[in-house]
Formats: sequence, C-alpha cells, structure tokens
Amino acid sequence: MSTVWGNKIKLTVFGESHSEAMGVVIDNLPAGVKLDMAEIEREMARRAPNGGEFSTPRKEGDKVEIVSGYFDDKTTGTPLCGIIRNTNTKSSDYAQLKSVFRPGHSDYGYYLKSGGNNDYRGGGHSSGRLTATLVFAGAICKQLLRQKGVEIGAHILSIKDIKDKPFGVEINPAELSALTYKPFPLIDESLFDKMRETILSAREEGDSVGGVIECAAVGLKGGVGEPFFDSIESHLASLLFSVPAVKGVQFGKGYDLTKMYGSEANDPFRYEGDKVITSTNNNGGILGGLSTGMPIVFNVAIKPTPSIFIQQNTIDVAAKENTVLSLKGRHDSCIVVRAVPVIEAVCAIALYDLL
Amino acid sequence: MSTVWGNKIKLTVFGESHSEAMGVVIDNLPAGVKLDMAEIEREMARRAPNGGEFSTPRKEGDKVEIVSGYFDDKTTGTPLCGIIRNTNTKSSDYAQLKSVFRPGHSDYGYYLKSGGNNDYRGGGHSSGRLTATLVFAGAICKQLLRQKGVEIGAHILSIKDIKDKPFGVEINPAELSALTYKPFPLIDESLFDKMRETILSAREEGDSVGGVIECAAVGLKGGVGEPFFDSIESHLASLLFSVPAVKGVQFGKGYDLTKMYGSEANDPFRYEGDKVITSTNNNGGILGGLSTGMPIVFNVAIKPTPSIFIQQNTIDVAAKENTVLSLKGRHDSCIVVRAVPVIEAVCAIALYDLL
Amino acid sequence: MSTVWGNKIKLTVFGESHSEAMGVVIDNLPAGVKLDMAEIEREMARRAPNGGEFSTPRKEGDKVEIVSGYFDDKTTGTPLCGIIRNTNTKSSDYAQLKSVFRPGHSDYGYYLKSGGNNDYRGGGHSSGRLTATLVFAGAICKQLLRQKGVEIGAHILSIKDIKDKPFGVEINPAELSALTYKPFPLIDESLFDKMRETILSAREEGDSVGGVIECAAVGLKGGVGEPFFDSIESHLASLLFSVPAVKGVQFGKGYDLTKMYGSEANDPFRYEGDKVITSTNNNGGILGGLSTGMPIVFNVAIKPTPSIFIQQNTIDVAAKENTVLSLKGRHDSCIVVRAVPVIEAVCAIALYDLL
Amino acid sequence: MSTVWGNKIKLTVFGESHSEAMGVVIDNLPAGVKLDMAEIEREMARRAPNGGEFSTPRKEGDKVEIVSGYFDDKTTGTPLCGIIRNTNTKSSDYAQLKSVFRPGHSDYGYYLKSGGNNDYRGGGHSSGRLTATLVFAGAICKQLLRQKGVEIGAHILSIKDIKDKPFGVEINPAELSALTYKPFPLIDESLFDKMRETILSAREEGDSVGGVIECAAVGLKGGVGEPFFDSIESHLASLLFSVPAVKGVQFGKGYDLTKMYGSEANDPFRYEGDKVITSTNNNGGILGGLSTGMPIVFNVAIKPTPSIFIQQNTIDVAAKENTVLSLKGRHDSCIVVRAVPVIEAVCAIALYDLL
Repeated sequence: MSTVWGNKIKLTVFGESHSEAMGVVIDNLPAGVKLDMAEIEREMARRAPNGGEFSTPRKEGDKVEIVSGYFDDKTTGTPLCGIIRNTNTKSSDYAQLKSVFRPGHSDYGYYLKSGGNNDYRGGGHSSGRLTATLVFAGAICKQLLRQKGVEIGAHILSIKDIKDKPFGVEINPAELSALTYKPFPLIDESLFDKMRETILSAREEGDSVGGVIECAAVGLKGGVGEPFFDSIESHLASLLFSVPAVKGVQFGKGYDLTKMYGSEANDPFRYEGDKVITSTNNNGGILGGLSTGMPIVFNVAIKPTPSIFIQQNTIDVAAKENTVLSLKGRHDSCIVVRAVPVIEAVCAIALYDLL
Repeated sequence: MSTVWGNKIKLTVFGESHSEAMGVVIDNLPAGVKLDMAEIEREMARRAPNGGEFSTPRKEGDKVEIVSGYFDDKTTGTPLCGIIRNTNTKSSDYAQLKSVFRPGHSDYGYYLKSGGNNDYRGGGHSSGRLTATLVFAGAICKQLLRQKGVEIGAHILSIKDIKDKPFGVEINPAELSALTYKPFPLIDESLFDKMRETILSAREEGDSVGGVIECAAVGLKGGVGEPFFDSIESHLASLLFSVPAVKGVQFGKGYDLTKMYGSEANDPFRYEGDKVITSTNNNGGILGGLSTGMPIVFNVAIKPTPSIFIQQNTIDVAAKENTVLSLKGRHDSCIVVRAVPVIEAVCAIALYDLL
Repeated sequence: MSTVWGNKIKLTVFGESHSEAMGVVIDNLPAGVKLDMAEIEREMARRAPNGGEFSTPRKEGDKVEIVSGYFDDKTTGTPLCGIIRNTNTKSSDYAQLKSVFRPGHSDYGYYLKSGGNNDYRGGGHSSGRLTATLVFAGAICKQLLRQKGVEIGAHILSIKDIKDKPFGVEINPAELSALTYKPFPLIDESLFDKMRETILSAREEGDSVGGVIECAAVGLKGGVGEPFFDSIESHLASLLFSVPAVKGVQFGKGYDLTKMYGSEANDPFRYEGDKVITSTNNNGGILGGLSTGMPIVFNVAIKPTPSIFIQQNTIDVAAKENTVLSLKGRHDSCIVVRAVPVIEAVCAIALYDLL
Repeated sequence: MSTVWGNKIKLTVFGESHSEAMGVVIDNLPAGVKLDMAEIEREMARRAPNGGEFSTPRKEGDKVEIVSGYFDDKTTGTPLCGIIRNTNTKSSDYAQLKSVFRPGHSDYGYYLKSGGNNDYRGGGHSSGRLTATLVFAGAICKQLLRQKGVEIGAHILSIKDIKDKPFGVEINPAELSALTYKPFPLIDESLFDKMRETILSAREEGDSVGGVIECAAVGLKGGVGEPFFDSIESHLASLLFSVPAVKGVQFGKGYDLTKMYGSEANDPFRYEGDKVITSTNNNGGILGGLSTGMPIVFNVAIKPTPSIFIQQNTIDVAAKENTVLSLKGRHDSCIVVRAVPVIEAVCAIALYDLL
C-alpha cells in the first residue's frame, strides 16, 4: 500500500526518474468539474527545472497527458490518470551508482530492499522528480478547494541560516495566492540577495544548501479533520514526509511551543460578531487534530540536496570495499525553491481529502 | 477511516475518556506468540497517572482485559482486542465544558464536527487518556520487535528551555532499554532537579509546561520502509501526530540540517568489516524513507498541557458570548513524562507494521 | 486487513465463539443519531438461539453493550463499539476437536493457518456466532437507511428442495419489512409445514439441511455504487461470503440469465410519469455495478450445517491417523432460519456503506 | 476506493473504453522477477477481439506498454504500471447513447451518478474492454503463482442450456493449464458444434446468449485465506463481480449443496500417506474461508451481452420520453468465450493477493 494514499480520494503514484513514464491516478474526484489546464501547467512549471540559476541545467518538460477520467472538458468522476513521459534522461550519468551509493541518498536502502534490483538511475522511484505527480494532483485539489473558498500559499522561511518573516495571525487570501506567482517567494523580499548569494556560492563550491518552507491555508472552516490517525496533522505529515528531503514538520509555533507556558501557548477563543476566532494562532489552526477556522500554518525542514560534486567517502558493494565518489550529472544546489509548489500541492491534497 | 491504521497489522481504536470503556483491536498479529503480561502491565503503569508529583491526582488503573485473539497463553492470529474500563471518572467536573470551550483543547472542533453531539467529558475521544490503547498495542509490538533484535527507548530531551544531551551516533541497546525503567528518563541525570523545579513551579502557578522527547530504535536492519506514503518518516509521523499535544516531529538532525551544507549533512557510508555503517547519523537512520541499518532517531515537540487553572478568555456557544473560564478538575501540569512511553509505543507500532 | 471492512464506514470485527467477548467497532457513523435500542434488540433476538424447534438448545443472550461512540442517547460520530460477552459456553464439548477436525468445518484450515494455535472451541473466530456482531451493525445501518427511505427484508426461498415463490418485479415496502417480523419468513406460507417437517426429520436423523435466502432492498435511488471493485454486487458479495455457510450468491435472475437470450434478459427502460422504471427486473436492480432505482434483489445459498451427529470419517492430526468422529454438543439442524436476519444485516451494511 | 483493490498487492485500474488509454498499476510486487512477456501477450490475445466468428469485428491490439516498475528485464518492487492505448475507436457509433440508454447496460446508472458527465462512449469506464487491464495483472500473478506450484485454468461449463462436464474431485495440473491453450475450452469437446451453432444462430437474429464459466486452481496449500472479509470466497467474489456481465458466483457445488443433507455435503478428511485430502470436494477446496489444499473450484454466471441489434424499448432523457433503440456498432453476440481468460486472471489476482 506504499504508493496508494487517501480516504475521500485515492492517489496512486507510479514511475521512476528514468522509466518510460511516471504518473498518478486520482480516484473519487467529483464529476462535472472543468479543470483550468493553464493553471495546472503553471503549477507544473513552478516545480520543473527551468535551467535558471537556482535549478539544474536539466530541462524537463513535465507535460502531463490526461489519459482517463476527463471527457468533454469535464471530470467524469472515474479515475483520472495523468502521465508524464520521462524525456531528456541521461542514464549514462548514473551507471556508476549501481554499486557505489551516494551518501544522503536512497540508493543503499533500495539496493537492500530490492536485492539489487532497483532502478538506480536518477534515484529511481524515490527521485525528487516524482513530486511532479504530486504537483499535478495538487493543482487539481487546489482548484477544488478554491471553489470552497480555501486558498493555499507558501514562502521560503529560511535558506541555511537566513530567515524570512513568518506568517502573522491573520493572513490575507489575496497576498497568500500572490506568493504562488513569485519565482522566489518571500514575505520580506529584501532578503532575496543574501539568500541568492548563499545558494550560488554553495553551487560554486559544488556543495548544496537547504532551508525551511512555511505553508498556509486560509478559508478552511472549523471542525474539519478526523480523530487520531487522520488528524489534520497526521494526514498532512504523512504526505509531507513522502516528499524527498523533508526531515521535519511543525504546526503553528511547533517546537517553540515547548518553551512556552500553557498560559502563553493556549489560543483564547473570542467572538468577533458571529465569527469565532482566536486572538493568537500558536496551534496553527489545528486543535485535537481538527481545524479551528483559523489559518492552517505549518513549516517543513528541507535538507540540503545530497547530490554534491565534492568528493565523498562511500562504499562499493560490487567490490565490497570503501571508496570515494565524485558525482557527475546535473543537480540542484538548492532544492528549496522548486520544493515550494510541492509543499503547497501536498497541503492541497491532504486538506481536500479531509473536506 | 479515521481510527483504523496500518498495513501489515491493523489497529482500530475506540473509546472516550468517560465512556464505558476504551480499547484497541489489533488485527494480523502472528499466531503462537506468548505475551509477557507483566511487561505489558509495566508499560501501562509508566503512562498511567500515579498520583505522583508530576502527575494528575487522578488514579487510573488502566487494567487491560484481553477479550479475543488470545488462547492457551498464545496469540491465535485472529484480532486481539484489549479493553480498558473507564473507572474513577468525575464527569461532573466537565459539565461546564459543554458550551464553554477550553483554549488549546479540541472541544470547539469536536463541537463543530459533531453538531454539538460530542462527548465533551474529559476531552471525549480526543482525550490523552486514549493513548493508553496505543501503549498496550505498542507493548505487544515491542515484544515482537525484540524477537527480531530491535530495541526501543526514549528520553526527555527538554522541559521548557532545559535541554538534555541528545543521543550519539552509536546507541547501546542495553542503555536504551534501561531508559524505559527510569521514572524520569534522562541521559544527563544531573538535569533532573532543574527540570523538576520548572514543572513544580508551573504547577504552583496553576500553569503548565511542555518539552521534547527524543526516541530511538536500534537493531533495525537496512532497507525497511516503503516508498512514498509509507516511508518510515511518513508512517511514524502519521502515528506521532495522532498523539495529543504533539506539534512537531523531526528525524535525525531535523531542522538543524537546514543550516548545514550538503557536505556536512550527508552521512558517508563505510565498511566496518562486513557491516555497512555511516560515520555520522544526521539523517536519523532513514534515507529515501528506508532504513539504513543505523539507529532510527527522531524527536517530537510536546506542547504545554492546555488544561491550566489560570483564568482564560474563551466563548460560551450556548450564550453566544465571550466569557472567562476557570478550569476545575484534575490535570497534569506537564504531560511530557507520561508521554515518553506513548512515543516509544507509537515507534514500536510503526516500525513493526513496516517490518 | 481481514477483519476490517468498508469505505464510508469501517467495520472491525473481533472475538471467538468461546473467548471472553466478541464485538464490532463501527467507525464514521454520523453524529447526533438516536438509535432505537428496542429495534436493535429485536434484530439480535431474531438471530440468537432461542431453544425453539429449529434452533440449538444453546441459549445465547447476545446482549450488546455499547461502550463508546454513544452519549446522551445519540451517536457522537466517533467509533461506536458494541461488545457481546460469551456466556453459557460449554468448552468441554469441544476438547476432542483440537486435533480431530469436523468435516465441512473450518477447523483444519485454522489449524494450518495458525500452526495449531487456533481457538478450536466452537469454531473460534469463524463460528457462526460472530454473525451476531454483523446483526448489531446491520441493525444500526437499517435505521440509517430507513431515514433515507430504504427498506430491507428477506424470506426463505427454499429449504432443501422445497421452493417458496420469489419476489416479483414490484415489491411493497410494508410487506417487505413485515417479513422481518415473521419467525419463519415465507411469501407462500402454505409451505411452512413441509419445510418444518423436512428440518425436523433431518434433526431426527442427527443430520442437517440447508436452503436459499432471497433478500431485497427497496427505495434505493439510482446511480448508487462504485465502478469495479465496489460495484454493488462486489460490495455485497464480499460481505455475504463472509457469512459462514454461504456458498453461492446471485443477483436478479442470476444463473437463469445464462439460459435467456439478450432480448429476454435486458430490462427495458420506461418512463412512468417522471419516474424511470424497468418493466422487468432480471438484473436485480443493478446494472454495471450501479443501482437503477428498481428493487435490489439477490439470493444466497446456505449449505447444510456441517455439525451433524451422524458418525463421520476424518483425521486425527495428533495421532496422525484416520479416525471417525461422533460429534457431541448442541447444534442447529438447519441454520437457514437464523441466517435470514444476518443476510438482511449484511445487505444493510453494504448498501449504507455505498450511499 | 472504488478502483483500488487488494491487501498484499494493490491494483489501481483506470481508463474508459474510448479515453486516450486505460491501464493498471500493480503495487507491492516482489523485486527481481523476470516476466515472460510472450506469455503475457498470449493471455492478452485470448481476451482481445480477434474478428473471429465468436467475436466482435472490432480489432483491438491490446498492446501493453510497461512504463514503470520494470528495469533490466526484472521487476524492481516499485509500482508496475501497464498502459493500453485505445486505438480503433469509432466514437461516432455511440453519439446516440448520450441520452438514449441501452437496456441491460450501465449507461443509465452512470448518467445518474455523474450528473450526465459520464463518458458514454462504448460504456466508458464500465466497458468490458477494461477487463484487459485485469488480464494483464492476472498474467503476472499467474506467473508468480506458478513459481509456487499453483496452476489455474477454466472451461466453458455452459452456453445457454448446453452443459459441459464439470471438473471432477481430482484435477490434473497439466490438463488444467492445457485448457488455456484452447480457443474454445471444453472438457467434453464433442459439445463444441452445438454451442457454436447456438451462438451463431443468436447472432443471426441480432440477439445474444450467455453461459457459465467454471474455473479451478490446483496446488494451493491449505490454510490460505483470511477470516471474514477476506475469506477466499469474499476475496474472489469481490473481484469476480467487478467483471461486467457476471451475475452469479458459486463455490464447489454451490446451490446444489442446499439440496443435500449435511451428511452428503460434508467432505470427509483422509490421510493419503502424509497428505491430507478430502474424498469429495463439494466445498470447492474452501472451508471457513480458508483453503483445504484441495482444488479451488468455482463457477460464474455470465449474462447474455446486453448489446443486441433487435429493436428495444428504452427512454430518451434529453427528450424525456419513451423511445425505441436500434443499436449500431460492433458487438459480441456471446462474450463467454472471451471472458474465460478474464475469470482465470481474476482468480490468479485474488489467490496471489492472499498467498
């Protein structure tokens, strides 16, 4: 059941970085919904490598072909399958990785799990490339959520040790969705130059950096979510940790809550006219696993891309000996920028599934 | 599907804090396993309120009755159901909470979700009390994991801003399991007095504090886990965030990884004889969602107990007006100590389910 | 996942014939529903052994204790767990069955599956007794369906080779539900004496007989059901074949359809005012797995109870030799009558889950 | 979850008869398995329309493209996705069916379910054409089962009222698999001419006929299956009833068991050397939902193809009036022959999933 997810909808993800194609099947979508294809393409383009200065020189079209569940410009309510062909793959780059494993990468685990039968080219099934399927599914869920008044957006909360301002208690839906149009989404844009410099100088060294992405959803009504195993936090986290390089997730003030007194951490309820709000939102809009009606706010830790060009110590299982690896190929020196639409997509999928 | 979890096994959790009983059904356990009942009782006692200085004066026996799936002192392989009667419940304490919601608690969300039909007594289904069912299931999974050479243990990494030493790269199984015998598990025990003082002075004020729990599992072979939605991180996080008061989860160095260069974050592989190890374990024994054979290490943020005795602003939905709440009842001023066995249990369940 | 079932709701069944208790957890019920407890008891009594002439002399109270998910006389929307204690068990009757397997029974399969660790007393987990949990869940689903205008009822279509009249194209809801009040539900009641005689003479001989139960649901709107694996037929059949002794299921005219021409088998559509009906209902109200709005009609084959008192050839795995078995204990000579409410219950559960 | 199925493996089916493509994702296959592609093509060809005298003149290549989960001629253990392009579709044939529904077909149900947004061309998602995806998945499961000594085969038990001989108590694996090489599989081949004549004369009239398919699996060890909802019968039936036109399923002697005494129906156990067998196999190798080690035997009722060329009464929802339908297009007059490999495939999938 590893690659099937969801309750209300069902996502089935398939593909490898260098297989013929990758794709996703989305089951239980409502029938009769006209999809905004331009919007889907825009989301795909946000994640796709564009050869830009923060991206791998690889160009991946990430063109999605919808092969089922869509007829006469509307969803039919049957499984919608989107397929992305893997083009421009340079498998030769990866030949050495069959037995020499990249530190920080999944190669070794998959080698063990599959008894050496894994598709090691480009990380195979665990390649970041497969997040394209999540962005596609997320772009659809975003459109369905928008119809219910829910907007989703994210920004780069930090690159290495440079920190952007976090979201406030109140979040303006228009400003939130405006973030999705920025190539390098920041709340305090004055930080861009320093972040850019940090990334490029790392690239210079053949090294990489990571960062933190903060994501929010506004307009979600209260009482959404399920007890226990489908709490909003559980549901979101199970998807967020499916995204390669994510090593931490916190909701609201997260770890900072552990340094507060209960009297500081609790968010007092208040009537504002007929509307119930909380004057603070330390819990990120989630209490007991259910939404409170306040913005859903969480952030995720993205580790530095493990693919670096600096020589590293590792093993060669064919020779059964220690060795050194000098990585070839085309890799991002900072995946955080391209990960922003992925985190938004995952947020959209998880929330729509609970709605 | 909110309260059914798992692939290899299936957990079904039921009950409310003040309902007749709560319990858990564990499906797909192996047949013919003799359970160490004393060990199960020990785990239950670690979590149960004992009237001690860090615990609510409530005494909850948390005696588990196994009503099915166990015969002639062995598992039968059919669903094993454990039931815990709710005794010593003072529902009267909670009468006021039907319409006046506790800040930081699930009351409001459940009120909305159920259209006012929720069992508001003691937090109902979302009460921390239900974690007793997880401890029971976890105690069984711990025994099954031990047979496969896997040991699990946890310690209090911090209370408010007082920090214990984290686990090192190598973790001794005996020392790890020894932690489970400590009433207040710390690696650096000299910190106990300061932590104790912090908790008791908060209690003095009618306030509460939180902290961080670090958990580890050693002896897990490499290549365990599933791609995507059942990555070890996804699988663990989905359960960890089901535990009330958990607001953050990070694996290995987690958020600190975002401040490192890739060249620092990557864990180099090395042969030590025939054994493959990594000289560092920044990734917490998990790469690409699969185990590497190194210790699984993660920590969770536990927010301060929302139940405090200091007067708080909130709403009364019956009167449809703002009001103040002065909480009565019997509550912990720091749930972290009692949460330690819960986090271990959840770790045992998630890892066994993937094994 | 063997004992967890459903999409919209989740059923988790646990227990053995002679374990402390058996029960069922029903997840995802709507909140705020007042259950008619008298009606639930009536359904339980229909299935329970009553010591009557068609039933085992065993008396089983089958009193259900609801231990969660129900508060202030209403469902809370959290998992509702009903527990039935196993009283009046005469385990001694079954001692011989540990190694000597009853022909036609599950003993041998469970012995193999569990490596000899199965609870062999009274059929253990596969005992017909566990259908009490389905009747309880079904009684709840029946009440929820009735609120949506759906009525369910069944009759004995045959005992051995004595055949009752089948349902017609149109089925009156009142007459259908009236069947559930008959101790021996027949459409043509004149057949009772011959059926009774057949059952009692079999009992005389220490033998047993089976029969066919026909069940119908009226008032279900068209377009209900899911493609493929949750077609109404798939969904119903997966539950129906979970009922011990069911060896065949057919919808509408079932096997007789294979002897018709397409021009006879097809049910022509017709407007009757605004209402769409079919002039025949050979397909039992289901086309392409979805409901047509016509009555859902199906029947199930119930094999003769395997527990007979006539000496039978079998094996003794302890002695590793062929042997003969003379069964002791208290057994039904015809399970069909008591199975009627079980089939109705299963129908209610499956249809409610799809609605 | 309508189009996701399975426990050990996960099948996800997508596509419509006239959509760009249809396909299936098979998750949790073992890694390192070399597939016999010629064998897969042979199975696909058995089901595909071949323009032969029993088949629609439509020619469908049904060429499967494996786009993931297969590398270096071996399975990788990640989701294997097979895609079949829909070529040679004459959508124009179906224009009239948007509002005029074919009696005996799913058109009306899907129209209601999707609010008129269903892909009505060729039956859309509920087209028999989608069984090609099951045959592909089944062909893989058959190869995996063969490695475990399990052989599967089926024959035509009846066409209309002409009956072939049923399987005996003992079934020879070689003879069973030989059936899969026959274009018109019969045990008593002398019946071919009469059956052929029956089908062709129906076609002459623009009418259609149905029949019964009997399927068997030999070599399955005892004790396979799960209690309750994944009994072998439940598991098989849930898939069998997903196959269009299947209206009945019975195991072993099925409905005939209801006419026997328990003393006749029970299958006595016997040691034959060390091997445990039953002298009869009335229960089709399944007791209490688990295998006994005897051949698994069941049969399914296939209704006559609803697509006939005789004028039929139906409705036009656009005009909101009764009308008559004269069907155009290319249709089978007897689907039974092409359904044989589908039933075998479904048997292979269900048994492998439980193994």
